[in-house]
Amino acid sequence: MIVVMQRDSTQAHLEGVKGRIEGHGLKAQVSEGVERTVVGVLGQTYRELKDELELLPGVSEVVLISKPYKLSSREFKPEDTIVKVGDISIGGDEVVVMAGPCAVESEKQMLTTAWEVKKAGAHILRGGAFKPRSSPYSFRGMGVQGLQLLAKAREETGLPVITEVMSTEDVGMVAQYADILQIGSRNAQNFNLLDAVGKVRKPVMVKRGFAASYEEWLLAAEYVLSGGNSQVILCERGIRTFETATRFTLDLAAIPMIKNLSHLPIISDPSHSTGKTNLVPPMVLASVAAGAHGLIVEVHPDPATAMCDGAQALTFEIFNQTMGQLNDVAAALGRGRVKVAV
Amino acid sequence: MIVVMQRDSTQAHLEGVKGRIEGHGLKAQVSEGVERTVVGVLGQTYRELKDELELLPGVSEVVLISKPYKLSSREFKPEDTIVKVGDISIGGDEVVVMAGPCAVESEKQMLTTAWEVKKAGAHILRGGAFKPRSSPYSFRGMGVQGLQLLAKAREETGLPVITEVMSTEDVGMVAQYADILQIGSRNAQNFNLLDAVGKVRKPVMVKRGFAASYEEWLLAAEYVLSGGNSQVILCERGIRTFETATRFTLDLAAIPMIKNLSHLPIISDPSHSTGKTNLVPPMVLASVAAGAHGLIVEVHPDPATAMCDGAQALTFEIFNQTMGQLNDVAAALGRGRVKVAV
Amino acid sequence: MIVVMQRDSTQAHLEGVKGRIEGHGLKAQVSEGVERTVVGVLGQTYRELKDELELLPGVSEVVLISKPYKLSSREFKPEDTIVKVGDISIGGDEVVVMAGPCAVESEKQMLTTAWEVKKAGAHILRGGAFKPRSSPYSFRGMGVQGLQLLAKAREETGLPVITEVMSTEDVGMVAQYADILQIGSRNAQNFNLLDAVGKVRKPVMVKRGFAASYEEWLLAAEYVLSGGNSQVILCERGIRTFETATRFTLDLAAIPMIKNLSHLPIISDPSHSTGKTNLVPPMVLASVAAGAHGLIVEVHPDPATAMCDGAQALTFEIFNQTMGQLNDVAAALGRGRVKVAV
Amino acid sequence: MIVVMQRDSTQAHLEGVKGRIEGHGLKAQVSEGVERTVVGVLGQTYRELKDELELLPGVSEVVLISKPYKLSSREFKPEDTIVKVGDISIGGDEVVVMAGPCAVESEKQMLTTAWEVKKAGAHILRGGAFKPRSSPYSFRGMGVQGLQLLAKAREETGLPVITEVMSTEDVGMVAQYADILQIGSRNAQNFNLLDAVGKVRKPVMVKRGFAASYEEWLLAAEYVLSGGNSQVILCERGIRTFETATRFTLDLAAIPMIKNLSHLPIISDPSHSTGKTNLVPPMVLASVAAGAHGLIVEVHPDPATAMCDGAQALTFEIFNQTMGQLNDVAAALGRGRVKVAV
Repeated sequence: MIVVMQRDSTQAHLEGVKGRIEGHGLKAQVSEGVERTVVGVLGQTYRELKDELELLPGVSEVVLISKPYKLSSREFKPEDTIVKVGDISIGGDEVVVMAGPCAVESEKQMLTTAWEVKKAGAHILRGGAFKPRSSPYSFRGMGVQGLQLLAKAREETGLPVITEVMSTEDVGMVAQYADILQIGSRNAQNFNLLDAVGKVRKPVMVKRGFAASYEEWLLAAEYVLSGGNSQVILCERGIRTFETATRFTLDLAAIPMIKNLSHLPIISDPSHSTGKTNLVPPMVLASVAAGAHGLIVEVHPDPATAMCDGAQALTFEIFNQTMGQLNDVAAALGRGRVKVAV
Repeated sequence: MIVVMQRDSTQAHLEGVKGRIEGHGLKAQVSEGVERTVVGVLGQTYRELKDELELLPGVSEVVLISKPYKLSSREFKPEDTIVKVGDISIGGDEVVVMAGPCAVESEKQMLTTAWEVKKAGAHILRGGAFKPRSSPYSFRGMGVQGLQLLAKAREETGLPVITEVMSTEDVGMVAQYADILQIGSRNAQNFNLLDAVGKVRKPVMVKRGFAASYEEWLLAAEYVLSGGNSQVILCERGIRTFETATRFTLDLAAIPMIKNLSHLPIISDPSHSTGKTNLVPPMVLASVAAGAHGLIVEVHPDPATAMCDGAQALTFEIFNQTMGQLNDVAAALGRGRVKVAV
Repeated sequence: MIVVMQRDSTQAHLEGVKGRIEGHGLKAQVSEGVERTVVGVLGQTYRELKDELELLPGVSEVVLISKPYKLSSREFKPEDTIVKVGDISIGGDEVVVMAGPCAVESEKQMLTTAWEVKKAGAHILRGGAFKPRSSPYSFRGMGVQGLQLLAKAREETGLPVITEVMSTEDVGMVAQYADILQIGSRNAQNFNLLDAVGKVRKPVMVKRGFAASYEEWLLAAEYVLSGGNSQVILCERGIRTFETATRFTLDLAAIPMIKNLSHLPIISDPSHSTGKTNLVPPMVLASVAAGAHGLIVEVHPDPATAMCDGAQALTFEIFNQTMGQLNDVAAALGRGRVKVAV
Repeated sequence: MIVVMQRDSTQAHLEGVKGRIEGHGLKAQVSEGVERTVVGVLGQTYRELKDELELLPGVSEVVLISKPYKLSSREFKPEDTIVKVGDISIGGDEVVVMAGPCAVESEKQMLTTAWEVKKAGAHILRGGAFKPRSSPYSFRGMGVQGLQLLAKAREETGLPVITEVMSTEDVGMVAQYADILQIGSRNAQNFNLLDAVGKVRKPVMVKRGFAASYEEWLLAAEYVLSGGNSQVILCERGIRTFETATRFTLDLAAIPMIKNLSHLPIISDPSHSTGKTNLVPPMVLASVAAGAHGLIVEVHPDPATAMCDGAQALTFEIFNQTMGQLNDVAAALGRGRVKVAV
């Protein structure tokens, strides 16, 4: 922590700052620059101290130099975390693909989709049983019945399933059915929910809040990690910007950036970010080229009649083609895919 | 709902669109423009239909012309909603002021602050017992003990209290202690929580999500209203933009805009939006001039040692001065304040 | 300038950083913290040094602590700058109002508007002769003829005029006609144009780029000031955010913030920022309450037939009412208006 | 153009709207929906009409259904535009790479870089002679001397050159030296400059304004095209968002999106968007996978001593490695690169 003094601050101001710092058992180291005096704070600092020091007379600003997240940082754990789901490893060289409909709608829809995405090479089945919807009047998911259909699809196809949990009360139940719990973008700062999934012993995928900085996103992961659950996957799903022609703006630089800052696996969601079916295949390929550990893609037997987000769902045919291209790009970069016997 | 056809769409495409619309029991009305053909959809449309029609061949885009929120719209209820908290009316001409510390820290802190803000003319006491914090390592509030201290401060001073509820499990308990329940910005799309407070019979203040559009914000209110709770107050608290010198960007045009779109009372939070104590007084005055029904302001006996957000808290002295100016501006605009006997 | 070393940096890295700093004739002061080592750079630093040091091995980041603008900073010049236009002082207690149509359209339009806004209490006449338009097919202004009509309106009413200059070639000509030259939001980083108006001896109003940070905005002013022209006025006109219901988001916290950072006068443009006529009056009042030194407001004899931005122009009647309220708010805050004999 | 009436609008309001539309020689077609009445405007509409109609009593909003750009739209010209620079085709299957330093600094720097990027497979040499800089105190380029050094590098290596033009006065001179003129992000709405390069008979690369929507970007291109210059290349270079850990947010979905909306070639700038050297290679690969027609990449002999933007420049070695991977990804997607004899 560095305290930058105002240009016209006095010696008394400086003494006040030093006194405050030392009063907390920390050391103050003063540097007199040409333009300004700065005071380094040595010792175990904490975020609230910034506010306290910034309010002292003569202080211009306080600059934090430590990151507020620890367990999720690469400095804390230099080697990559690999999250295991059965035989599947998320976080290594191979590109892991999660695919399926936005919402679980019926047994037939889920089973058909599960078999088709498996045939195309997907490793994990996605499907929402609890759906966060902007409007209370939209379809909000089948609930526990949806979870049962996901479990049935897993039983039949062998594909592990990922599904969203929206509420602390539902965590136990969802964890019974799901192989990976998903925290959605709208709950990325629902701290009680993050606490709750921190106590579960199943992998958790933390989607980036659509207005979350990298730091806030890693702090969301920190909630889960500090709760005792080390199996965390991050998912870039687009951020809100001034551009409204796409649903969100997929921030692919987040992929290499997060890989620098953190040891956690990171995957990409080209479906929710773009919101447009024709933009999904190129963004799948770009995500792999950017180094994503995996993808989560919406696929539906008949996008036009989907009960949720049909405009961004791929047909089986397009998904299959896209998987072929994904394989080619992954191979060109020396990355294979997880081999799954079909 | 208006379907805009592509410029090169064919008669067969148009028939496909008409067929789909009529298949849902709706009427299709075709207009052939110079540049494009558009199809009006007449009847009770719904949002998912947009996705469905946009995926049909020959369709360029589908434009929604109805708003997705109903109960919160001024079209649905033209007259202003007045939320009553004891003798205090929120939503009328008088400017209602909620004030207090970011977090409840101790009995002494709460009682001192309650008496001081009351003396300065505040009507409602604020204080957080459950605190949403970006980092799991920050102070997260005193919990139920904090609620008890709020209740004690109410008992002594007569000021009603507003406090945040972060979790569905806590709604019942918080409702026992609080006069107004607050939904924070980070939970503005925590739909289960919005459902839960919709079943409570206490006023609810819905803060704008810091990346929420007006429409999403009114839909958050719609969750509460459609749950059966009509006592909803909106609170503008700043949005996230590219400008980082302030904590958020206070969007004061939201005040008159929301008053056009909705009948619900709207107040302003100059503390969390700016994050800087010296910006709070001018933003208090600007909020009143913009037409806000009220304000929520952070005040602390000693901001420098506050356990949370000290950098934006006013001292008693500054708060008192600001209340004086607020009164002058309100009077200049023909608005009084609620009279509360001190 | 502070160099933050990586947690795992070595003594050799540290020596490298020190060597580089000292090689530029600067001093390096090392602080060994619990978590990290930081190196203070003492002496006359410059922005490019940040890039240079950040690329050295072992460096995590380089933090700037000096502001890049000097002449526009309050530290450089503590007392407020007052820009004089004839008898009018911009930058003092009195609220200066600039009003008129978006574009000059005809003699009749200009003269009628000039007399009407003068009657309502405006001090300066605005009107665009050169119009920046997103589309090449929109009306782009009357050019020099427009300047002549502005001059005629000044002659008849005595109101000084402000008008936009868009091109370096036009600076001389516009300066002949205008009392204040306006740099529009889209040219806020047209550095050649800023250089050119820096050489003129007329006041210049620099609008904030709609995606400019406070720092970039003050640097735009710095171009003009460093060119030798000290008569600079700043104008907040809304920034681009994710909210599209208003044209831009008026950032009123910029008013007190800029007054802290700079000695230059700052005014507010509630017309372009909101883009909606019914939002303009409340934003006029909020701007005054926030402490703006003045306002620039669009007024048109018949907004519905305006050739440019009619949706945000006030009628004479609404402008007149708004001026009355503005006076009341200004008076409540102890601020008068410039007295102009009508 | 569609006029949406307010829910409580009267027959008189509707007549007013119809009258106004018909008064302009257009046809009004009324649709009475369940919730609202809408009026289609048939005939050659124009943008200003929106403002006019929105101000009429009883009107809720006016929705535009035509795009404001024409010449740049794919509807106007369905087949891809190929811009030819000597033997190089920009806009086809092959990935065209432009590389070189941010700023021209010396003969040695330019010649070394030109030879090295050519050896690595680049097709076009970049280098700034006129540099737009936020601060007036930063290095602003060598001017005409820089242009001469670019010409010399072309002479020696045979690489065509691209360089930025910042001012209308300089257009003629820059066009004498450059093979492609670049309009920078900060001048993306400098309409006089766009007009000026529209009259030149050299290819022009229009960078996206960092706060420009797709529509505004295509309108910037429209200025050039409507001036008579059909050789326009678009360049995505990152947009400004709330995330500040990267310099800008590279919006790669813009690549397929623009290819849908327009026939113009589109390339990607991973250097300015990320601002960090270690993010550039993955974003190069992601851009190719997303379908970009080309790339513009900063390369410098010694990034640490670059006079401009060193933090984002690649060394020769990293550039060479990245070109290898780029080739592999392009090949995997069935795209070759332009063959240039070295």
